[in-house]
Amino acid sequence: MKLYQDERALNPRRVRIFAAEKGIEFSVENIDIFKSDHKTAGFTALNPMQRVPVLELDDGSTISESTAICRYFEALKPEPALMGGDPVEQGRVEMWHRRIELNLLEAITQCFRHGHPMMAELENPQIKDWSVLNQGRAAAMLEFLNGDMADRRFIAGDSFSIADIACLCAVDFLKAARLELTEDHGNLRRWHEEVSARPSAAA
Amino acid sequence: MKLYQDERALNPRRVRIFAAEKGIEFSVENIDIFKSDHKTAGFTALNPMQRVPVLELDDGSTISESTAICRYFEALKPEPALMGGDPVEQGRVEMWHRRIELNLLEAITQCFRHGHPMMAELENPQIKDWSVLNQGRAAAMLEFLNGDMADRRFIAGDSFSIADIACLCAVDFLKAARLELTEDHGNLRRWHEEVSARPSAAA
Repeated sequence: MKLYQDERALNPRRVRIFAAEKGIEFSVENIDIFKSDHKTAGFTALNPMQRVPVLELDDGSTISESTAICRYFEALKPEPALMGGDPVEQGRVEMWHRRIELNLLEAITQCFRHGHPMMAELENPQIKDWSVLNQGRAAAMLEFLNGDMADRRFIAGDSFSIADIACLCAVDFLKAARLELTEDHGNLRRWHEEVSARPSAAA
Repeated sequence: MKLYQDERALNPRRVRIFAAEKGIEFSVENIDIFKSDHKTAGFTALNPMQRVPVLELDDGSTISESTAICRYFEALKPEPALMGGDPVEQGRVEMWHRRIELNLLEAITQCFRHGHPMMAELENPQIKDWSVLNQGRAAAMLEFLNGDMADRRFIAGDSFSIADIACLCAVDFLKAARLELTEDHGNLRRWHEEVSARPSAAA
């Protein structure tokens, strides 16, 4: 298997951490989104949505969308389960993964894409008001999450899951949205320290 | 089980169709989001994100986020599989479901939330430029999807899946984004006619 990615991008990191937790290996081909490598005819044939990451299987077929690649890995190698065990756990992990994606990760990404000078060319037109609104959303979600995490070890409960991976990648990208974890985020900082210490975080 | 929903909203419909395809039953409690029923203390206790739908299990615990509720149903009653069978199929269904969500359903929703007078109070401030940008995105995705569907029966391949449900709900909500399927969308219209004729579409 081969993963097409831009190593600096947030979404490929989600896939790398997920695979590292499972001990799944693949080769990597780096492309440069700031040189519009993802808009070439060759890359568009791999993923018409022109996004990274893309996983190419050994038969040449492809899976794109980071969560879809993770889903493939989970089915391929169920242990350790990163998307929940029994039905309720599967639902609960997906719920938290979605909450992190929609309210934090996506908010930070939109703030970055529509507010950061670095993105002016790739995200044209940038809508500054949308960036500001999403910065507020991300800050509000951090505050909610910090309170909610008082009683549990990981984002979706007692076990490390794909929701922790999404949240770790989001928190490590906060700077791009001109946000950071502060002393007010004690529970999140405790959580962040623990998940950052896992070997997979360096994947 | 009980589903809290606003019957007119797009996301609860995704859950109702999914459950109907599986023959899963639950009671329903309707709330009115235009009367801010989702912002009461009682509803916030069910889902701190203040969104519908929410599924309440018989032990009083809850699962929110429509896809998370569907995931719970899929694990509870695997047949008929609506999220793919073998690992590659699971990845491929999740990929198409995400593509539909991110590029069509979410674009239509954002266009509606930030552009429609009906949403002026719930979505405050509305960002008109963001609405316009998303209308263009939705239109572009419809065009791409129509071309891509030339060779297959359903969104993710030969089998009906959760991706068809998301796309059906999106297409039936096009009017809210001041868009529609036209004569240029022959493949999508053929698909739309078929999935709309399934009994679940009326759920």
